[in-house]
Amino acid sequence: MTISARNQFKGTVESVQEGAVNALVHVKTAADDIITATVSLEAVKELGLAAGKEATAVVKATEVLVGIGDAKLSARNQLAGEVTKVQEGAVNAIVTIKTEGGTEIEATISLEAVKELGLAAGVKAKAIIKATAVIIAI
Amino acid sequence: MTISARNQFKGTVESVQEGAVNALVHVKTAADDIITATVSLEAVKELGLAAGKEATAVVKATEVLVGIGDAKLSARNQLAGEVTKVQEGAVNAIVTIKTEGGTEIEATISLEAVKELGLAAGVKAKAIIKATAVIIAI
Amino acid sequence: MTISARNQFKGTVESVQEGAVNALVHVKTAADDIITATVSLEAVKELGLAAGKEATAVVKATEVLVGIGDAKLSARNQLAGEVTKVQEGAVNAIVTIKTEGGTEIEATISLEAVKELGLAAGVKAKAIIKATAVIIAI
Repeated sequence: MTISARNQFKGTVESVQEGAVNALVHVKTAADDIITATVSLEAVKELGLAAGKEATAVVKATEVLVGIGDAKLSARNQLAGEVTKVQEGAVNAIVTIKTEGGTEIEATISLEAVKELGLAAGVKAKAIIKATAVIIAI
Repeated sequence: MTISARNQFKGTVESVQEGAVNALVHVKTAADDIITATVSLEAVKELGLAAGKEATAVVKATEVLVGIGDAKLSARNQLAGEVTKVQEGAVNAIVTIKTEGGTEIEATISLEAVKELGLAAGVKAKAIIKATAVIIAI
Repeated sequence: MTISARNQFKGTVESVQEGAVNALVHVKTAADDIITATVSLEAVKELGLAAGKEATAVVKATEVLVGIGDAKLSARNQLAGEVTKVQEGAVNAIVTIKTEGGTEIEATISLEAVKELGLAAGVKAKAIIKATAVIIAI
């Protein structure tokens, strides 16, 4: 399937923690990042998600926050890298962050945020993604 | 209440699966689609959600992904239809997909995605929505 | 950490309800609003979230819906206030709502919605946010 989401991280399921109706799935990407996804137990069964299964973590750019500096965040995914591109729109912008491992993440954020954070090519920044924002595709 | 969300599917609750702090609610729409929502147990009690209850599934356009083709996805909602309209913005676009049952879904995605997927009126596509992205209104 | 999210509500954790893999965290803000967040149990432990802990609730503007009137919604967060600003883009707009307590919330919604709801400075409206859309930062 060709999906509109700007972020599609190919990898392998490392572990699945089952809850009451949801589960936490950890996917190790080709670039060695761990992406954590909260999916329903229904999905775990339907997709046969288990350690060793090949899977792709899919994230809409609108779900990605950008942060500069350090903080303890509840968000399970914090990918550190460098801004490589900023495409400015009318009120929003799409910012691309590239990690050391080579993963590129696109974040749709407000133009206000781009100015406040001083985002431009070369700036070190983190892509922040809640586990609930991640879809798993197999 | 008049809500900003572009997607508001009127229907009836088919079932509620209670978890530890969350629940999975299945709503059958007028067009016979099933929309699955992950809501808190607090919400299930406050809204009296149970099989037979009339309810509306509300989804922001920014939460909708578009896909072409087939794939097993963890996302609980995949509504197949045809693109009827594409409104292009500066970096984003709003794509309307109409299902066979007549349901119209609007998805806010990047212009990049519109080009990559070749989205235009007449193209067959699926609207993909995570259960965590759905709000229930009664 | 400087974060791109337009909404950052400083406050204190009031309570934490632990589930099987997720938890519901209630944060009381400086303006006396309660913001409810669904975060993973992993996060609760990593951040040491418990009643009395200082914490900031972080929400992307794209996660905020706007509503006029009243309705029972599953969304745990409904902040009533008045629109103070509308910044129009190409297909989207950023609407600012100020609550009586002085909290300002920014919502990125479609231009269509701005017209349909008649949003302009002075209009009474509610900012609606799902608990799954809230990130906690300490």
